[in-house]
Amino acid sequence: MQDKETLLAIVERAIGALPLEEAEPTGLYAPIRYILEDGGKRIRPLLCLMGADLYGGRAESALSAAVAVEVFHNFTLLHDDIMDQAELRRGRPTVHRKWDPNSAILSGDAMLILAYRILQDGAGVYGSEKLPALLDVFSRGAMEVCQGQQYDMDFESAEREVSLDEYIEMIRLKTSVLLAAALEMGAIVGGASEGERQALYEFGVNLGLAFQIQDDLLDTYGDAETFGKTIGGDIAVGKKTFLHITAMERASASQREAISRPGDRAEKLSRVRGIYDTLGVRGAAEETIAAYFDRALAALHQAHAVPERLAVLEKYAYSLLKRTK
Amino acid sequence: MQDKETLLAIVERAIGALPLEEAEPTGLYAPIRYILEDGGKRIRPLLCLMGADLYGGRAESALSAAVAVEVFHNFTLLHDDIMDQAELRRGRPTVHRKWDPNSAILSGDAMLILAYRILQDGAGVYGSEKLPALLDVFSRGAMEVCQGQQYDMDFESAEREVSLDEYIEMIRLKTSVLLAAALEMGAIVGGASEGERQALYEFGVNLGLAFQIQDDLLDTYGDAETFGKTIGGDIAVGKKTFLHITAMERASASQREAISRPGDRAEKLSRVRGIYDTLGVRGAAEETIAAYFDRALAALHQAHAVPERLAVLEKYAYSLLKRTK
Repeated sequence: MQDKETLLAIVERAIGALPLEEAEPTGLYAPIRYILEDGGKRIRPLLCLMGADLYGGRAESALSAAVAVEVFHNFTLLHDDIMDQAELRRGRPTVHRKWDPNSAILSGDAMLILAYRILQDGAGVYGSEKLPALLDVFSRGAMEVCQGQQYDMDFESAEREVSLDEYIEMIRLKTSVLLAAALEMGAIVGGASEGERQALYEFGVNLGLAFQIQDDLLDTYGDAETFGKTIGGDIAVGKKTFLHITAMERASASQREAISRPGDRAEKLSRVRGIYDTLGVRGAAEETIAAYFDRALAALHQAHAVPERLAVLEKYAYSLLKRTK
Repeated sequence: MQDKETLLAIVERAIGALPLEEAEPTGLYAPIRYILEDGGKRIRPLLCLMGADLYGGRAESALSAAVAVEVFHNFTLLHDDIMDQAELRRGRPTVHRKWDPNSAILSGDAMLILAYRILQDGAGVYGSEKLPALLDVFSRGAMEVCQGQQYDMDFESAEREVSLDEYIEMIRLKTSVLLAAALEMGAIVGGASEGERQALYEFGVNLGLAFQIQDDLLDTYGDAETFGKTIGGDIAVGKKTFLHITAMERASASQREAISRPGDRAEKLSRVRGIYDTLGVRGAAEETIAAYFDRALAALHQAHAVPERLAVLEKYAYSLLKRTK
């Protein structure tokens, strides 16, 4: 089994080799190259390759599936940034700012098609008899990501409070299912059984939930240096995160008013964080993250792979959650 | 071979049966239902079914390919309407006006994924051994439509004049290749040979070019009643159509100035049409339409199908161009 760094290099090389450099029209392909080249953690393609590696297949056999999922993921970022009117992505201007919204819409559309082309063009490597199963998992996951984004928009514009169950379902769709699909696609390429595929999918869903709630936690309690984003963004805009929803469920009327009241950014952050502390919101988040992470690991151990291969994936999961074993 | 009306009823029934009615979240699926339910001519799915029928296959075998292409086509309309800031589509408010731009972006994305799902879900009917070829033709065509849209946007914002060759290439990508892909996908399902597939593709490309130039012609010279749109829209906004480009190539400096000069809509229409008439632009368009239509028919007769089956497709092509045989 190849380690994470080796697999990452394989992914970067494959993304760098996509024929986008001289593709015409430039207006269509330059934004695609721009968003793909600035990295990110490449979590999904790594999970896909590790999923294939688990069952003794060569990780490279799953490379087209891995790259397809990464291109799809970056397509969602591109369109989400338009919808959120985001200015920056990974420290650089978003595509719709650097170019314009129409370019961002159209280049995003082309990325979605490109993702499918990459997946189908890999059939010669992974075997075309696996194409229907791969497409099925990919398209189902892709559609669920759209559903998750719609729920996210619905929740943000809703006057009412959102329940924790609704929130978990939203992040499951918007974030987790694509990690799960990446893993399952890797497992399909690797020749896993139906049960093993299912176990890896469960691992991915629970890992994704833990990961997203940790992201919520870090946005409020993280260290700006290591988190890589300004702390307190969610509280500043009143975003309905795991922390916010948990707090609102536990809060008194006056605490609820204090959470919702606008204010200067630093003052609001300190005020709301104070209420969260009183209500034990941080601990609730940490417990929930731990619970999902435990479920993820339990599912992973149902995946019946050779222990040393399993260990690479397990280690990577720990690193994603910044946990030590 | 089933006639056009029978095939149209089959297409409408299949589109009506898509599971969009109760799908959640409603915000995602209601715009999809809205744009799919208001009809249009269903040219692409009809061509797809006729393509399958040509080779003795049952047209219904190609139904998922036909519906996938139609869903894709309506996805492009949905996103194009955002980019063009169009207010109306087939007489009704566009999705981004009836809902909002974000909904239109996201529902469009979901439609593109839905198109792939429909295509792959039909494999049980047309045979999964045909899936790779169908996907290949579909994705290639889909990507070319995006390229065509990019060229269209590039040309509209360009200060320079666009050459006729560039224009033809743009409409080939934006309009023709999807007609061609629909036909070729039908032919694949019907079991056509590589050469027959190629012939039908050529038929589609040339039919599409004739169709689009005729659309340009009708926008300036058509009868508002039968055209279904207000006449003179292209001239009012100075759109770089076949007529405009041909005129600019033939015009003197003063005629060029007169074509480009703004003015009251009715006055500008009459002024520019006058110059077109002087320059023989209408005749040039009619000749070009006839030439592409002849090429389309010649390609069709290379498709080696039973004459009475070919006749249905030929008759439909004539009807699209409002020509009599």
